[in-house]
Amino acid sequence: MELLKKTISEKGKVLPGDVLKVDSFLNHQIDVSLLHEMGKTVYDNFSDCKVDKILTVEASGIAFACLTAQFFCCPVLFAKKSKTSNLSADVYTAEVQSYTHGVKNTIMVSKNYLSSGERVLVVDDFLARGEAANGMIELVEKAGAKLVGVVAAIEKVYQGGGDALRKKGVNVFSLAMIDSLENGKITFCR
Amino acid sequence: MELLKKTISEKGKVLPGDVLKVDSFLNHQIDVSLLHEMGKTVYDNFSDCKVDKILTVEASGIAFACLTAQFFCCPVLFAKKSKTSNLSADVYTAEVQSYTHGVKNTIMVSKNYLSSGERVLVVDDFLARGEAANGMIELVEKAGAKLVGVVAAIEKVYQGGGDALRKKGVNVFSLAMIDSLENGKITFCR
Repeated sequence: MELLKKTISEKGKVLPGDVLKVDSFLNHQIDVSLLHEMGKTVYDNFSDCKVDKILTVEASGIAFACLTAQFFCCPVLFAKKSKTSNLSADVYTAEVQSYTHGVKNTIMVSKNYLSSGERVLVVDDFLARGEAANGMIELVEKAGAKLVGVVAAIEKVYQGGGDALRKKGVNVFSLAMIDSLENGKITFCR
Repeated sequence: MELLKKTISEKGKVLPGDVLKVDSFLNHQIDVSLLHEMGKTVYDNFSDCKVDKILTVEASGIAFACLTAQFFCCPVLFAKKSKTSNLSADVYTAEVQSYTHGVKNTIMVSKNYLSSGERVLVVDDFLARGEAANGMIELVEKAGAKLVGVVAAIEKVYQGGGDALRKKGVNVFSLAMIDSLENGKITFCR
């Protein structure tokens, strides 16, 4: 998606440790009009698919998921990262290693909101090694729901998570595909 | 707002510990079309005010903030609850006691995204004792920004946080004002 690539090129910053900082528009400050356009692009790609629900994970996936869900006219479900006192014990869980934060999280959704047969689109801000996406797919599978596809705003293609999913037959759609962050330069795949 | 009150009455659950569980539509599963209407109601209330930015706190405020920001055509900034490796050290911070989770969090925003003179609307899902709202107001003040008002989807009026802010002259706008959860019954103020 050209508008997103342009924004990444202009406002993204490459930090040590292979980190692409996009917190001026995607995951701290949020450019809502950009995310609206991103949601439209996702809808255009999946418009022939029935989507009952969009699944994401807190916190940085929520904005993109909600603005995308407006086009599909479906609810969002965001997986939580730690057990909270007002979330029922009746949850599906998966273990996820966070690349950015260097910690292992349990992600969970209430069994009430993910049901057998539901058609679920997984949406997140980043797809790198695929840890979060795989965790969400595990939640979908545990619920007996049907995975429609995996959407990422930004895929770090060289980390292999997206291609590993594609090899398994998952419909992966990324709005910006990054080939390299070497020497502080952001290079897109195409 | 009648639609929100109707949804709370139909789908909200009162749990022990004075917890109003609204995770079927507000803060786990998200009814995006409801939040869109809620955002429109917020805009109607503040349409004569210039709003440069909406400030919320992760994770459950993000959806409501983003859907509200669409009407104001402004960005959202969400405060983060813990220090992450890709957030700059150059942050404004405030201490917030979480009523629901029983823990104390540091919330923070990058100094890059909250500026002197900016007109900021604080938005959150709940307003109870006002801890999160006061924390966000502290961030606004530290940045030298101007507080336009505080918006809550649901105010637990009997916990006093909203009225304490009103007494200080803050423009507080809540879409559903709850008078009592006694005996498991949800009673609205009006």
